[in-house]
Amino acid sequence: MATPDKHDSLKRATRMMTKRAVATIARRIAPERRDIPLSTWHLSRDAAGALYLGPVRLRDTLARIGSPIHLVDADALALNAARFSACPAGASRSCEVFCSYKTSPVPGILAHLHARGLGAEVVSPYELWLALRLGVPPEAIVYNGPAKSDASLISALDANVGLINVNARPEIARLASLASARGKRPNIGIRVVIPGAVGGQLGERIDTGAALRAYAEALRCPDLRVVALHSHFNHQITSAAEIEGFVSGILSFADQLHRRFGLDLEIIDVGGNLACPTVSPLGSRARRLAVTLGCEPTLRSPASVLSIDEYVTRVVHRIESHYVARRRPVPRIFIEPGRALTANAQMLLCSVAAVRDRDETGIRWAVLDLGIHVAEPLTSEVHQLFAMSAPEGARKQLYRLTGPSCMLSDQLYPAWRLPELAPGDGLAIMDTGAYFVAFSTPFSCPRPAVVMIDGALERVLRRAETFEDLIALDGIPHPQHRSSNHPRTATDPGSTFGVTT
Amino acid sequence: MATPDKHDSLKRATRMMTKRAVATIARRIAPERRDIPLSTWHLSRDAAGALYLGPVRLRDTLARIGSPIHLVDADALALNAARFSACPAGASRSCEVFCSYKTSPVPGILAHLHARGLGAEVVSPYELWLALRLGVPPEAIVYNGPAKSDASLISALDANVGLINVNARPEIARLASLASARGKRPNIGIRVVIPGAVGGQLGERIDTGAALRAYAEALRCPDLRVVALHSHFNHQITSAAEIEGFVSGILSFADQLHRRFGLDLEIIDVGGNLACPTVSPLGSRARRLAVTLGCEPTLRSPASVLSIDEYVTRVVHRIESHYVARRRPVPRIFIEPGRALTANAQMLLCSVAAVRDRDETGIRWAVLDLGIHVAEPLTSEVHQLFAMSAPEGARKQLYRLTGPSCMLSDQLYPAWRLPELAPGDGLAIMDTGAYFVAFSTPFSCPRPAVVMIDGALERVLRRAETFEDLIALDGIPHPQHRSSNHPRTATDPGSTFGVTT
Repeated sequence: MATPDKHDSLKRATRMMTKRAVATIARRIAPERRDIPLSTWHLSRDAAGALYLGPVRLRDTLARIGSPIHLVDADALALNAARFSACPAGASRSCEVFCSYKTSPVPGILAHLHARGLGAEVVSPYELWLALRLGVPPEAIVYNGPAKSDASLISALDANVGLINVNARPEIARLASLASARGKRPNIGIRVVIPGAVGGQLGERIDTGAALRAYAEALRCPDLRVVALHSHFNHQITSAAEIEGFVSGILSFADQLHRRFGLDLEIIDVGGNLACPTVSPLGSRARRLAVTLGCEPTLRSPASVLSIDEYVTRVVHRIESHYVARRRPVPRIFIEPGRALTANAQMLLCSVAAVRDRDETGIRWAVLDLGIHVAEPLTSEVHQLFAMSAPEGARKQLYRLTGPSCMLSDQLYPAWRLPELAPGDGLAIMDTGAYFVAFSTPFSCPRPAVVMIDGALERVLRRAETFEDLIALDGIPHPQHRSSNHPRTATDPGSTFGVTT
Repeated sequence: MATPDKHDSLKRATRMMTKRAVATIARRIAPERRDIPLSTWHLSRDAAGALYLGPVRLRDTLARIGSPIHLVDADALALNAARFSACPAGASRSCEVFCSYKTSPVPGILAHLHARGLGAEVVSPYELWLALRLGVPPEAIVYNGPAKSDASLISALDANVGLINVNARPEIARLASLASARGKRPNIGIRVVIPGAVGGQLGERIDTGAALRAYAEALRCPDLRVVALHSHFNHQITSAAEIEGFVSGILSFADQLHRRFGLDLEIIDVGGNLACPTVSPLGSRARRLAVTLGCEPTLRSPASVLSIDEYVTRVVHRIESHYVARRRPVPRIFIEPGRALTANAQMLLCSVAAVRDRDETGIRWAVLDLGIHVAEPLTSEVHQLFAMSAPEGARKQLYRLTGPSCMLSDQLYPAWRLPELAPGDGLAIMDTGAYFVAFSTPFSCPRPAVVMIDGALERVLRRAETFEDLIALDGIPHPQHRSSNHPRTATDPGSTFGVTT
């Protein structure tokens, strides 16, 4: 009876030693991680190694408000907005910029962008409602999306929103009939998919003739003002060649519309999709290497990605020169930036909840107070991570950072070298302004606050969820007798522990 | 200039025709989808093909409450609870059952299970708070998890919860010191990882000696009553062999604890992980085939998966016979079922928001009012889907079902044959009682209500989110002047459109 057991243990021991050896070698030959400089985000460190955003010591913010926090940099946001709105040298116009609500749905962030002249790009009845609720001028709203309810289209018509982009042919007749019933004639565009691109449920394909048929149908509707052409690249744009090819595809179809229907477009809406230069994609191979062997992922050079300025310049010049050469009126240019507008203006501050012993391959595990359910993009992207305290010359070691939930898949950084961590130590995950808040779920833990740093001012845009918030829609009567047992404490900032709010 | 364009179009046309031909052939040779019978869920159809749960016509529920809805079957839930709690034939005891809060965090569902004698398995400060808030007797609470805050451990100590399972060695000293300071001596277990299993951040490994060292350390703490051994299989259990191997691994370590420390365990906690028989894993190959070629995924036979009864029988007999043979006292057996307890007692009702024209490969696309952000498990699992109306003999066609958000990845069913769909038609996704509500995010759309069907009674356990709910923590002042423009309507059940709640 003992022999198979012993045999198994021997086999397992051999496997473990092999794994350790392979991991050690793989980590040696893997290229060393090259951090992006702190100054990229206006971060700095004092002599003791504490991390600052401008004049704000991040450790203090975390202590004051409670960990974790989504921290928004008001200046970085404003700078991105200004760059997207700038008129390129030599051009006669700038783009009209509509911020993507789905990418960053926090009212305080949206209001900051609207105050800088940006419009709203909304893709659902809720987002349309939110834009109107935030007081965005209706003419500065573009309504997109594949599931526009009748009720939301009526809202859009009654409010006279600037542009409604039809997602698919069957929407045309429905919109026309609603418009007719309300005595309205809305500005509409049709979302198209350029040849060779992936379209899926979004837009009508040019290469199958579907896009042209949709325009023909819309142009026959007297209740619709067909003024716009709308498209998205549908993948992250990182190079000049990509944006050139994409805009060429759009312009070629615009020419076709002109030839076939004599249509002079008033608006070309080139969508969004510009990448954030400081975020790198995390391929499945790189992730596997990180998970199985502890090899750190590499960050691409930010300079290898098209900048906002270059993107805007190329879009405007390409469209303007196209129309000038053909002596046709140059349309207004709409852009709908998402991640490139907000990603690098936000970071996620969190803390170490627990540190484990080194595992059999020499890696240390730290459990954070923030999991993949608040940081979903980390499953497919590499985001620069900084320790809030990193004294000069501190020896780094290899960590695996996991979330607080009881799921093996709750891993944020499978491999990242950091100075030694202890419970309570702070970390800052960079570039979390796109899809982090949007994809957050209160899985086992309430969701964090959103705080804006505006110079030396700290403003809570959205408070942290309390425990009571998570059952607020459940109508559970509140017990009176427990409030004394479970005081609100500093280490559970989100909790009310039985205290009625 | 025209030649490369023409060449490109030709190449694209050839590619499209090839794609269509390959898709047609692949769909022909793919095995036909075999539906699981309606009766498995106490569903039935009337003569006109309308879908019923017991006496309730689901279309009526959807119309009454508004689409989409999480629908809980009270009887199915009670039956699962009874099966897990049953004493197997020939055994002297049953398991003590603790329902996993993270799997299904809705208070009304948890209360239904607690009322049937089940305890609470909680893994975070929030879940511990919730169990106490719901009035679960403290001795019926097991507190697990890798990130137990000091404040939550103090709550657990003050409330005298039944069992605290330590996740990793460094937690022992912290817990002992808190216990000592509060004058408490809690019952504790240590989570261990059996040889050959994946442990990650959860538990101490047996095969490295870490688990034994942790027990040695805990046993030296006078403030801790070391009474339990805790482990999870960490993969879904589908076969008798898996549960046998897993329990053997636990028992072998329990014997080691007995030999080394003379420890007679009072509790063996075998965790959860039993699979839901009517849900199939969706491998990456099957998903790719569905997405690229429109091949329907196959569902495994429910009979191929270990039933609750068989699982309980094997766990109890294996443990009991082990101790009886060794003439040592048989420990209490704790189980912490998650998906097998709740998955098949819940379904997700939703509606078609829009239908698109057939695409170039012959597939029709329908956009639902419910996306992957409320149905995240569909990315890796196949769930039986029924149309709410399926008249006898209705011809089926191939659909691709997507969600309402503006993301290409928002696909729920890349390929599924259904009777012809029109906007407003209802669908029922089965077995959504595990991780659907838990992983939901209000991405672009508010989250649906949770409704329990109890015989002919309909109870709203959690109301649908309103638009205002989504910005309730943002402290945006409410505008007075818009309430008349945006009336609450039946097609936007979640919306308040400016009406104060």
